[in-house]
Amino acid sequence: MAGPSTVVAFQGVSGAYSEAAAQEFFGARGLVLSPLPEFASVFRAVTTKRAAFGVLPVENSLTGSIHQNYDLLIDHPVRIVGEVKLRVSHNLLAVKGATLAGIRTVLSHPQALAQCQGFLAKLKKAEATPFFDTAGSAKHVAEHGAKDVAAIASRTAGQTYGLVRLAEAIEDNAQNYTRFIVIEPESKKAPLAKARGKTRRKTSVVFAMKANVSGALHKSLSIFAIRDIDLVKIESRPIPGQPWQYLFYLDFATPADPDTGARAIEHLREITSFTRVLGTYEEG
Amino acid sequence: MAGPSTVVAFQGVSGAYSEAAAQEFFGARGLVLSPLPEFASVFRAVTTKRAAFGVLPVENSLTGSIHQNYDLLIDHPVRIVGEVKLRVSHNLLAVKGATLAGIRTVLSHPQALAQCQGFLAKLKKAEATPFFDTAGSAKHVAEHGAKDVAAIASRTAGQTYGLVRLAEAIEDNAQNYTRFIVIEPESKKAPLAKARGKTRRKTSVVFAMKANVSGALHKSLSIFAIRDIDLVKIESRPIPGQPWQYLFYLDFATPADPDTGARAIEHLREITSFTRVLGTYEEG
Repeated sequence: MAGPSTVVAFQGVSGAYSEAAAQEFFGARGLVLSPLPEFASVFRAVTTKRAAFGVLPVENSLTGSIHQNYDLLIDHPVRIVGEVKLRVSHNLLAVKGATLAGIRTVLSHPQALAQCQGFLAKLKKAEATPFFDTAGSAKHVAEHGAKDVAAIASRTAGQTYGLVRLAEAIEDNAQNYTRFIVIEPESKKAPLAKARGKTRRKTSVVFAMKANVSGALHKSLSIFAIRDIDLVKIESRPIPGQPWQYLFYLDFATPADPDTGARAIEHLREITSFTRVLGTYEEG
Repeated sequence: MAGPSTVVAFQGVSGAYSEAAAQEFFGARGLVLSPLPEFASVFRAVTTKRAAFGVLPVENSLTGSIHQNYDLLIDHPVRIVGEVKLRVSHNLLAVKGATLAGIRTVLSHPQALAQCQGFLAKLKKAEATPFFDTAGSAKHVAEHGAKDVAAIASRTAGQTYGLVRLAEAIEDNAQNYTRFIVIEPESKKAPLAKARGKTRRKTSVVFAMKANVSGALHKSLSIFAIRDIDLVKIESRPIPGQPWQYLFYLDFATPADPDTGARAIEHLREITSFTRVLGTYEEG
């Protein structure tokens, strides 16, 4: 799928977990990785075709969904074509000559700091300080050069910015995975069909209920239950301007028989005020 | 319910939206409001009975659920006894003598900054800077005293810290409500039963599915559908250490017949690995 010089956009700086996810999905060969400052920039790069694909985190197994990307999905004409699940392992990174005992400030993304709370509690003299980005905090430490400042980021970020690892695998819970989606422009004709040796495929849809339908959510899930289609994930997001009304994002196991899946979607359209298929893709 | 000197804990500083929610729920008379630095501190104050009640935001109609409080609910022996929905209207606050044209920095909680993006885009010379708290940013502006710095916070926060309002109702979307829950210790004998002139009551439960049960979520919602019980809200949260397994938080309209509600809960226990009733309370 990734030909020579396929441009793949991600949010963050070099060494970000999103970059690792892109490399895992596409392989490192012939890939042109485009680091962008915001999630919205990644969506824009894809819709304007400055990038062939975008890789975006949507869920972490400890902290939950990354809602901003759910909200951006509905606002952009993109299609989900793949998924990557990445094991997230954090490291304490500092400049050469720094020591664990000498660290006074630890910079990282608030979620990474939260995931390393147990480790940080033992570093009594160090203060955790939020930073916009994990890899960005590593970059900042390298540029800043002080021996009493450390960053929490990936091993790759440490290598990228020439930092030493004062501690590794410092996350409180080893079951720390982030799930990324791979998107392409919806207008692109040929959807991704490359077999990657796995059988289970998933379909993501987003829908809104008709107003004042009693048991509407139950009815929408029945559509899948009566067809023996397994639900993988459900997520609700507020509809701006309609307090306490929700959009539902549903991931379901794509049935082997394509007709069954298509009929379920038709049935969903019948009882909802809005339904959009975000994509069908192999599970990561 | 609130007797003389009832202590009610909330997160933030004086002038916070949570404080306004507490005053709306309990009335201002005889209330001792206890501002605490973190959501977790509010839960601890309630479980250790340093506060009779706690008031916590759980959802905003534009930005969605405040997941930290869902996660803290399951970790603490508390019961939900009430709900408040508060219209959130933001103001641009600054020290006396400041002018709109002279503002260069606007401080506030990232969610408040996000909710006023349209207004901020027009303030071309001002840079939005995240702060830990809305009311806290107002306090900071008052203490700092510079005429080129403003805060986004409530009208009350402006009055509390003696600031002037350079602009009001600056939120992009007027349908901006935050929903708060009122909690008390679970060990307390008499649950809240004060009638507040409204009829609809809600019950909040949290449950986990048994592993490998096909269509488990649909089955759990069927329990309510077959009893004509309306669902108000569903929220899923990750189970730490069990990637891609979820806890479901469900709010449903409490049936008029208490037996029907009790049977639904019994039925839910039958098909789930874990079920806890968080409380039954009047809708806010």
